[in-house]
Amino acid sequence: MADKNFTPAELYDAWPVLSMEERVEGFEFLQREEADDFFLQLSARDRAQLVLALPPGERRLWIRLLAPDDAADLIQEAPADERENLLALLDDSTRREVKGLLDYAEDEAGGLMNTRYSRLRADMTVDEAIAYLRRDARQREKTVYYVYVVDAEEHLLGVVSFRDLIVAPGDNHVSDVMRMEVISAPDDLDQEALSQLFMRHHLLMMPIVDAQGRIKGVVNVNDIVQVVQEEATEDIQKIGGVATLEGPYLQIPLLLMIRKRAGWLAALFLGEMLTATAMGQFEAEIARAVVLALFVPLIISSGGNSGSQATTLVIRAMALGELRLRDWWRVIRRELVTGLGLGLILASIGLARILVWQGLFKAYGEHYFLVALTVALSLVGVVLWGSIAGSILPFILRALGFDPASASAPFVATLVDVTGLIIYFSIAAVVLRGTLL
Amino acid sequence: MADKNFTPAELYDAWPVLSMEERVEGFEFLQREEADDFFLQLSARDRAQLVLALPPGERRLWIRLLAPDDAADLIQEAPADERENLLALLDDSTRREVKGLLDYAEDEAGGLMNTRYSRLRADMTVDEAIAYLRRDARQREKTVYYVYVVDAEEHLLGVVSFRDLIVAPGDNHVSDVMRMEVISAPDDLDQEALSQLFMRHHLLMMPIVDAQGRIKGVVNVNDIVQVVQEEATEDIQKIGGVATLEGPYLQIPLLLMIRKRAGWLAALFLGEMLTATAMGQFEAEIARAVVLALFVPLIISSGGNSGSQATTLVIRAMALGELRLRDWWRVIRRELVTGLGLGLILASIGLARILVWQGLFKAYGEHYFLVALTVALSLVGVVLWGSIAGSILPFILRALGFDPASASAPFVATLVDVTGLIIYFSIAAVVLRGTLL
Repeated sequence: MADKNFTPAELYDAWPVLSMEERVEGFEFLQREEADDFFLQLSARDRAQLVLALPPGERRLWIRLLAPDDAADLIQEAPADERENLLALLDDSTRREVKGLLDYAEDEAGGLMNTRYSRLRADMTVDEAIAYLRRDARQREKTVYYVYVVDAEEHLLGVVSFRDLIVAPGDNHVSDVMRMEVISAPDDLDQEALSQLFMRHHLLMMPIVDAQGRIKGVVNVNDIVQVVQEEATEDIQKIGGVATLEGPYLQIPLLLMIRKRAGWLAALFLGEMLTATAMGQFEAEIARAVVLALFVPLIISSGGNSGSQATTLVIRAMALGELRLRDWWRVIRRELVTGLGLGLILASIGLARILVWQGLFKAYGEHYFLVALTVALSLVGVVLWGSIAGSILPFILRALGFDPASASAPFVATLVDVTGLIIYFSIAAVVLRGTLL
Repeated sequence: MADKNFTPAELYDAWPVLSMEERVEGFEFLQREEADDFFLQLSARDRAQLVLALPPGERRLWIRLLAPDDAADLIQEAPADERENLLALLDDSTRREVKGLLDYAEDEAGGLMNTRYSRLRADMTVDEAIAYLRRDARQREKTVYYVYVVDAEEHLLGVVSFRDLIVAPGDNHVSDVMRMEVISAPDDLDQEALSQLFMRHHLLMMPIVDAQGRIKGVVNVNDIVQVVQEEATEDIQKIGGVATLEGPYLQIPLLLMIRKRAGWLAALFLGEMLTATAMGQFEAEIARAVVLALFVPLIISSGGNSGSQATTLVIRAMALGELRLRDWWRVIRRELVTGLGLGLILASIGLARILVWQGLFKAYGEHYFLVALTVALSLVGVVLWGSIAGSILPFILRALGFDPASASAPFVATLVDVTGLIIYFSIAAVVLRGTLL
């Protein structure tokens, strides 16, 4: 397969669409140094799949190329029955560190941290510190930007950057140069909160401490970019009504793809069946005034669309930390006004449409004005209700301990479809009593 | 208002819900050093609003606290008629830099870059380089992690980190220590592509070069976190069918909120009116078989939901660079299988529901089996069509030069509602001919 001799960049681009065999072949073809760089560019999932596809004799080399946190991520992505074998490939000290990291949940600060970081004592001079770091840095694989100053029990006292040390006179003490207000995070902090801390303080690295204030490791901003990207993907998929996919679109096996989508789709379908029940209740009315049926899709979809808008805005604002549970009343007040405004706009368009069509085609019979009024009033009610339901549902889910992003656009639309029908036919019953009904 | 004496953290948390007056009051109350830190934590938009709300005499102080790229961002966020006044507050050299930055579009690499970075010549020794950087670093406000090696015309030759310099013997030359494969980006690169480069190579900083390979500035990973977050927010809002909001949910004035939502909602409403037209075409059929109307919401919403899923997955995969235009055929093939699978699942549920209800309540008349068959076949057709339409629409938008995220869930749902009705009533016409119709 001479035509499969990819350059590293070509291989990276083609990766998502290659079979596992083709990947191994392309990877084995790379020069050793190219292969190192290439391996480090892959995501943890891709690394795990690749390492497991390589002959057992070659695996050790690649897993040992990784820092402990990356090795832990790789092992977490591997099937449960392969994990022990992979751990056995590490040297003793790394294996201990990796095992420590595997105890943390994947989505908390401890699960993101790197346990290899540089530390100094406060009473060293700057020259001593630089000499120490020169020796120390040669042994570390990862680039280090900040150095943490700790006491004998590893309590965090301060932080200096390499730049601070270079700029400072050599006979100063580390304690003179270090900054003492260090922003640190507890090891069980949720990764979404951690990334908000990073963004707010424009940090490159943050020390992670245990309940006693002892430093356990550091998190790099590069991992945070990944977290922000992944959390957004999760939220987007939930908003679209799909269970979170654990991989790129083209790489998900078709059966898994169907399963990931069928769950929500079937749940929504069961919910939506209530519309058939609701319509059944009004079957006599529809039989008497078929014209009412014509506007059913228009009215319920308007409620669904305004609900989608509201829920999307609220879910995202919550994820960005702009909205908290206690803001629910402010949100309802805003959505009352917004929903009313939007409902009136759609009602005017709907009213105009029916009157114009009636003028042109005599489409809606002698009671066309009452029909138009029914549609317009229903639109106000349904859009208002959609906006309020869509905005409040994420709060309810969150208060109950669920992910607010589960208040997906299709979920809200389904909820509003059922109630929208009831609103519509109830208004019709009042407005059209004695004429069409 | 002694009770408004916020600590900086309290003020930061309360910021989104405070009036502009309260913000100024809270800000003026902070100690000078606290106020500096606080100001630097704010977003560019918040900084611009705050600076403009301060008395003119105090503005200079705050805008001069910022690096040129941050000052440029602040000015970009200010109303057009205030920009000249704000520029006038800067010193001459910063003003020239800021004006250069303002020439770049906000969403391209040049618009994100910082023009203050450290550079070295290749023929310096490491000791000379460190001595130079010690002087140089004292003058820079921003922390510097990488130093770029350039020739006399500012062409980029290589990169060294502070750490590389500290670790290297002092009499080596910079050219011995520097890495020559520098990943750089052209100044007109789109910020989404730029952030993918950062993530792929785990970078902290990237030099930005012009068409001649001369370095123009650097972009920091901190700005990339912001970009990733903002792009995700934009996509989420578009997927939800809202024009992008330029600020936190609670801060958008209500009239603007209504305008941002009314545009899409009205457009969708106009599209959805076609459902009334389509239903009108089948009015005679509905009058003859009212039972058909009962399932209209169920069928069209199933198409809309499967369309939402497909469009959301494809839009996100495109944003992450997992799908490109040329993948459209692979996607259609996948959605054909997935849509068919999902359609069959919903059809089975629907069929079972109608048969059970018929058994329990005799709800659907003597031709209940044909009705059930109509519903089941329509579900297969509509879900299949929803999956394909939802997945292909982002490709069409992108090929035409629009943002694929505009293929929002409500947009796809509306498209599928109209076509779904046609599918349903066409199938009904065939299956029920001679019995109900």
